[in-house]
Amino acid sequence: MDYAHWDEMPTRWRDNDVYGHLNNVVHYELMDSVINRWLITEAGFSSLESASIGLCVESRCSYKAEAAYPSTIRVGLRIGRLGTSSVRYELGLFEGGRLLAEGEFTHVFVDRVTRRPSPLSGPMRAAMERLVVA
Amino acid sequence: MDYAHWDEMPTRWRDNDVYGHLNNVVHYELMDSVINRWLITEAGFSSLESASIGLCVESRCSYKAEAAYPSTIRVGLRIGRLGTSSVRYELGLFEGGRLLAEGEFTHVFVDRVTRRPSPLSGPMRAAMERLVVA
Amino acid sequence: MDYAHWDEMPTRWRDNDVYGHLNNVVHYELMDSVINRWLITEAGFSSLESASIGLCVESRCSYKAEAAYPSTIRVGLRIGRLGTSSVRYELGLFEGGRLLAEGEFTHVFVDRVTRRPSPLSGPMRAAMERLVVA
Amino acid sequence: MDYAHWDEMPTRWRDNDVYGHLNNVVHYELMDSVINRWLITEAGFSSLESASIGLCVESRCSYKAEAAYPSTIRVGLRIGRLGTSSVRYELGLFEGGRLLAEGEFTHVFVDRVTRRPSPLSGPMRAAMERLVVA
Repeated sequence: MDYAHWDEMPTRWRDNDVYGHLNNVVHYELMDSVINRWLITEAGFSSLESASIGLCVESRCSYKAEAAYPSTIRVGLRIGRLGTSSVRYELGLFEGGRLLAEGEFTHVFVDRVTRRPSPLSGPMRAAMERLVVA
Repeated sequence: MDYAHWDEMPTRWRDNDVYGHLNNVVHYELMDSVINRWLITEAGFSSLESASIGLCVESRCSYKAEAAYPSTIRVGLRIGRLGTSSVRYELGLFEGGRLLAEGEFTHVFVDRVTRRPSPLSGPMRAAMERLVVA
Repeated sequence: MDYAHWDEMPTRWRDNDVYGHLNNVVHYELMDSVINRWLITEAGFSSLESASIGLCVESRCSYKAEAAYPSTIRVGLRIGRLGTSSVRYELGLFEGGRLLAEGEFTHVFVDRVTRRPSPLSGPMRAAMERLVVA
Repeated sequence: MDYAHWDEMPTRWRDNDVYGHLNNVVHYELMDSVINRWLITEAGFSSLESASIGLCVESRCSYKAEAAYPSTIRVGLRIGRLGTSSVRYELGLFEGGRLLAEGEFTHVFVDRVTRRPSPLSGPMRAAMERLVVA
């Protein structure tokens, strides 16, 4: 549970699938939301105006325990690898103290128009360094 | 803004569509979530165990203003019509004090197995009467 | 079943909710998809490039029968009212010959940047007139 | 492109996110849908009635190229590892002949009630063996 940033997201009715628990896809929705909320509120990112945008090139999730709507999922976030234009986030999803899932999610920042990789800006990199856990 | 119950739900990254705002479908996800969370926490309902379940037979939404992720949507809930086995909820979605949308959503409670209409139980009806706004 | 255009969409695993049927929100996803696909392929619309875009200002749905994944939903589309800058679509969702739901969905076309109402272009209006059912 | 089973799924309006392309979460929705549709139609599985159900314990996706609504995604499916109660599917998502993404998805079959691992039934295993690619 060694994460550098914590956020939380409530579940929605539709997140429960026919087995009465959060569908496996939901965990990715939550990870994507927590990462982008952090980028927007802490790293100066704007999804509509920043010159470069983060595209997901790789994601994965290991599911450890079931959860269900209604609930509030706590999400821990850290950065496991910080490259020139890419960043690999590592996340833990919890219900109370119970680990639900561990995920990884890699963004490559690219120029919004050309979609070519673009080095992380200085301010964004500085913010991201605060999430790197040794 | 004359609602009997208030809840709130944050938006998710994926809620924004290509126009950079909450897709019209999202409002229904939020309404469905707020109604069922109220049923579960305030009216003794269990989606997995109650003998009768609420099926949506009619819904509608009027969109007044745009909102976008990241944001937290405040949702007001009241009951406009309380029948023998059906209930029409009325909802207002707000961002701060700004009205985003007004919706209606009608549940018919049916037997979980036969799917035939089933009168609202006494405790559920008593809870619902607290949401009726004259 | 008097519709001027027909399309079809398969359901997805996640469309089934805890009651083992299509969640009520899914019907709006299907309506939105069928309308926009028609706009793009038949009415010259581009969600990324057209000067004016269609924003949903009102939608509704009446649910008649349950369906579930896996299935393919047939969707009938017609136009019930064609105004200067707005259009009200009427839709029927079917599984085989069985009516699942009837919906309405109103687009107001607005300037992409200012979000002010914008008259329908001549070619788009001409295409839409072919969907008006007397 | 060495897959043992092929299916296809059209995209939906809401699949496009603010960058005008399929959100990374959508690929998991498509993989989940193609796997379960195969289980239901080819391997005798019933999500509502089978004694054992497949829970996702691990999933991953590598994104190679962007796609957008409207489009139809072709999905190739094979099995990379077939265990006593678990199965690892491997999938390729294509638009025409262009590779969009490669994914893996591991199901552990568990007893529906106890959620304890349960050996694959004979008929389901026989069907799965037809998807194993040497």
